Amino acid sequence: MARTGRRKGSPDTKDAIVNAARDAFAERGFDGASIRGIATSAGVDPALVYHYFATKEELFLAVVGAPADPSVFLAEAVAGPADEMGVRIVRMFLKVWGDPTLGPALLALVRSGLAHEWSARMLREFATSQILRRITSRLDVPPDEAKLRASLVGSQIIGLGLARYLIKIEPLASLEPEQVAGLVGPTLQRYLTGPL
Amino acid sequence: MARTGRRKGSPDTKDAIVNAARDAFAERGFDGASIRGIATSAGVDPALVYHYFATKEELFLAVVGAPADPSVFLAEAVAGPADEMGVRIVRMFLKVWGDPTLGPALLALVRSGLAHEWSARMLREFATSQILRRITSRLDVPPDEAKLRASLVGSQIIGLGLARYLIKIEPLASLEPEQVAGLVGPTLQRYLTGPL
Repeated sequence: MARTGRRKGSPDTKDAIVNAARDAFAERGFDGASIRGIATSAGVDPALVYHYFATKEELFLAVVGAPADPSVFLAEAVAGPADEMGVRIVRMFLKVWGDPTLGPALLALVRSGLAHEWSARMLREFATSQILRRITSRLDVPPDEAKLRASLVGSQIIGLGLARYLIKIEPLASLEPEQVAGLVGPTLQRYLTGPL
Repeated sequence: MARTGRRKGSPDTKDAIVNAARDAFAERGFDGASIRGIATSAGVDPALVYHYFATKEELFLAVVGAPADPSVFLAEAVAGPADEMGVRIVRMFLKVWGDPTLGPALLALVRSGLAHEWSARMLREFATSQILRRITSRLDVPPDEAKLRASLVGSQIIGLGLARYLIKIEPLASLEPEQVAGLVGPTLQRYLTGPL
């Protein structure tokens, strides 16, 4: 089989895939970008993309430089009764942000995401496709309502992270995690399952 | 009277005052910095500082590059019944952020405030001394409780501004202001006057 111009596996190939993926995600978003299209742009076979990245999610997380897979740390918070999800989600985020190996990297992602139009788009895709959609996937509501509730949840989570860890507004910055969960949990709960 | 080394009024003098003020606010915060100390650092008489800046607030707003005086745009939202303040505050912020001459400048202030440790400190001083303190000044609660409520209000306002205008999470980014006020107003109301 002729494969003219198609590169074989090598560190350069992996870089080419990540670069092509960066362009594709920035132009078409997470949902709109395809492994096939990214492979074509990188001049490789789609199978080679899957050799490096098991899923489109994994490739996307590599592109945005996410220090961990949100599906892993979200699993516990999303499982369990929906009427206590608000508090569980706040607890989970405080745990991740407070983790010395994860927190600074995640906050750096948000910080750089806000610095440029291009990176803001990637941050939006990261927040919606990897975090918010997973949170509202458990809710028994129509898709448009789920998106609305997700965007409200996003506004409070982003603000909590920035106010507590980057801007450091007191006393919010120094409260114990359980206090914050008790104060902010009801806000998320209303956004998730309350009357809007 | 000998005034050796003290500069007279000139554009350079104004710059020297602003530079000295920047250091003072960064080191000691808005409350800790004094006009007298700033004048000494700049090598000028305190009266000359007041010649350029009528109040410490005005000098601070010049230092952080605020495009407008928050006391002006906050006045209407803070006045009126406390049990509807949440919705009024959301409306006011949406109006300011949506104003083509004010909004981009205010969002740029937040964006740059998040870029560095030093500017995060100035953003915190701006948020707490110029905005949040004014919002909670109307509440009839002890000072520590007012600070706690103010910091929670801050977390939701900052997150709303970033999610809607910088990260542009849909549908929150495209909703009409009145819809946003109806959705987010109750969150601020609980943070301001509700049981915590």
